[in-house]
Amino acid sequence: MRTRRHFIKTSLSASAGACFLPLSLSRPAEKYDPGEKIRAFRKILEEPVFNSSLFHSPVIIQSIKIFKSGKHYFIEARSKGGARGIAVGRDKYIENIYPLIQNRIIRFFTGKNAVKLDELIHYIYLKALNYKWQGLAFWVGLAYVELALLDMLGQIARKPIGELLGGRVRDDVAIYYASGNRDNTAMEEVDYLKKLIERSGANAVKYRLGARMHTTPESDKRDRQLIPLARKELGEAILYADANGSYMVDQAISTGKMLQENQVAFFEEPCPFDHYEEIKIIAEALEIPLAGGEEESSTRQFMWLMDKNVLSVVQPDLLFYGGLIRSIKIARMAQHIGIDCTPHISGGALGFLYMIHFASCVPNIGPFQEFKGNKDQVPVESNSSSLQPSNGKIAIPCEPGLGVQFEESFMKNAKEIKCL
Amino acid sequence: MRTRRHFIKTSLSASAGACFLPLSLSRPAEKYDPGEKIRAFRKILEEPVFNSSLFHSPVIIQSIKIFKSGKHYFIEARSKGGARGIAVGRDKYIENIYPLIQNRIIRFFTGKNAVKLDELIHYIYLKALNYKWQGLAFWVGLAYVELALLDMLGQIARKPIGELLGGRVRDDVAIYYASGNRDNTAMEEVDYLKKLIERSGANAVKYRLGARMHTTPESDKRDRQLIPLARKELGEAILYADANGSYMVDQAISTGKMLQENQVAFFEEPCPFDHYEEIKIIAEALEIPLAGGEEESSTRQFMWLMDKNVLSVVQPDLLFYGGLIRSIKIARMAQHIGIDCTPHISGGALGFLYMIHFASCVPNIGPFQEFKGNKDQVPVESNSSSLQPSNGKIAIPCEPGLGVQFEESFMKNAKEIKCL
Repeated sequence: MRTRRHFIKTSLSASAGACFLPLSLSRPAEKYDPGEKIRAFRKILEEPVFNSSLFHSPVIIQSIKIFKSGKHYFIEARSKGGARGIAVGRDKYIENIYPLIQNRIIRFFTGKNAVKLDELIHYIYLKALNYKWQGLAFWVGLAYVELALLDMLGQIARKPIGELLGGRVRDDVAIYYASGNRDNTAMEEVDYLKKLIERSGANAVKYRLGARMHTTPESDKRDRQLIPLARKELGEAILYADANGSYMVDQAISTGKMLQENQVAFFEEPCPFDHYEEIKIIAEALEIPLAGGEEESSTRQFMWLMDKNVLSVVQPDLLFYGGLIRSIKIARMAQHIGIDCTPHISGGALGFLYMIHFASCVPNIGPFQEFKGNKDQVPVESNSSSLQPSNGKIAIPCEPGLGVQFEESFMKNAKEIKCL
Repeated sequence: MRTRRHFIKTSLSASAGACFLPLSLSRPAEKYDPGEKIRAFRKILEEPVFNSSLFHSPVIIQSIKIFKSGKHYFIEARSKGGARGIAVGRDKYIENIYPLIQNRIIRFFTGKNAVKLDELIHYIYLKALNYKWQGLAFWVGLAYVELALLDMLGQIARKPIGELLGGRVRDDVAIYYASGNRDNTAMEEVDYLKKLIERSGANAVKYRLGARMHTTPESDKRDRQLIPLARKELGEAILYADANGSYMVDQAISTGKMLQENQVAFFEEPCPFDHYEEIKIIAEALEIPLAGGEEESSTRQFMWLMDKNVLSVVQPDLLFYGGLIRSIKIARMAQHIGIDCTPHISGGALGFLYMIHFASCVPNIGPFQEFKGNKDQVPVESNSSSLQPSNGKIAIPCEPGLGVQFEESFMKNAKEIKCL
């Protein structure tokens, strides 16, 4: 017997064709009801995000290519009609996944009608057997291809991306900085947090706890000092805390209590991202809102995290989760239950540009977005935005598509990348 | 307010430094107990699988390289002492992930002591920031590198892989064939299933249900005809059914009832693999054992699926889950709760060879393993095994490492592959 449930023996040592007990008659089927929230989430999944009514004829994808210019990579999408879109990617992703992008994503999109973007994104996962490739490597590739296509579609419609994805709701975004430090003392960190507040102009900042997916005696000591010290020294500032999955349940709860005693606004990733049962227990034991979702690839698990009231701030990564359209569906689910969807930003290159376009058309992004906008020397400009924060805000480009231009030499020096 | 739980306002509009209610005092901490099974699973995770006592000195990894010969790819590992190990990979994986293997996996292993294999596999995920790369693309790469290292270590210890991973428990493996058909009629399929039974020599076979991650009116009709017809026509044969995640809850339950009325031995992947709540409900509504896990990357979710009695046959994919050591830990958890761990095999190339070595040292593999051993013309031989089934069984090589040799020309024509 290969099960611990009661099951009629499968070896069929009894006579073949014996009269089997019709179990279905003894157990009338009950229609499964996943509850109001999951039903609503499913409906949101089916509603398109991309506004295809802006396009009166198909936009056939002529080509999608990967280029390298200097140390930077970008995806270029071209339509049969001659429109072009460009999305710069982060080196450390593209250099690992360019064959995957070429073989499993570009091949799928080429020749298809870009106006059906929602449908294409649905099918590439489900029907093109890419569900087996679930995870960052696949979704980041899809995100960059989607962004290049959206830039191209924006050029055709003469509208910024937000107008293609439900309608623009704001022209600038309030930002804050997060510290990435873990190895300094609590006092050094508080001094650094003060500088970050000064630099952003926003009275909000995020610090790190734990040792990233684990703890050490040193990180424990630093946590205990930093949490009260940051509150004491930073006065009324809005403080966020990010543990990057460092804790087990007990320590997450005790740390969370310390955070709520010190009026921290949210507690991000208390335990490893795939410890779903644990994070639910942590949420139930604490009053402080939990934030998370940056490593989540599964739509169903995002739904679970929201259905069970585990997360109070849901943070899909715009790249790791597969782009703007997928992330906006999560934001709509969050809106349905009255919580914020504040995306996680992969630092480096133009991650911040994609974040501000997401923010341009999503109402419930929360009070502040994390800003990681160093551009990594990508030579990019916008006529309608400095692409830098000023007084705690950053303006969202309003030209077509992503609304940015690249230095001529950047494009001229670009070489197409091909895999084996 | 960004939460629907009661939370003291975070805006700190009240005076800074106010006396905060010490919530931790009003809620004495309860030590979280995940239960006996999870505690046992965690202990299994910490126990090494690789038998380092067979090695009396470190085995420093000199190099790991990716080669292509004809259409085939392989990973070659070399030790400082001159030992060599080879693992042939499946074209359609390696061609998408060779840069990821080179940048994120090979770089990590080079120069390290291969005898500490358990620890290296733990650290590459958790501390080398690869947890963000969770998913097939990362784990398949790690699996191939592990297999090349195990082959190399087997050459040094002069032992087959099973002896390195807990000890050999069998010399041959009972196999069966699975049909991959979905587009033929029920009657055509039953004829084909008969041929598969004849070909394997095992009175066991697996058929497919649904339309892979979805259903169609045609697939529904075929399911309803095939399930009773297969039982009627195939007499006492052991039948397995695989839905590849096709159903929602209600249909999974009604189909499952039909399967148990027709004495099918297990029902594989009734619903999409990340619909954890749904599969638990399906398991609770049915008597038939559920099988699954081929798409699962998360160790914690495997633990959940076993802790909650959802799966009665757990099926990590030896590649998608990251190799033999990780999969053997899942098998040990399964053994602890008295169920089988029958791995999923990615078809093509030498997947079957890795499966039989897994089977060589795992007691609870279940009565039959799926055989997908066409070798794809990889020119490989073993002195101790035909590498083909005979009378329903396939012999496991007993020479050192993987126990196989490649044609001289295959190795001679190989060219090293490098990414950008």
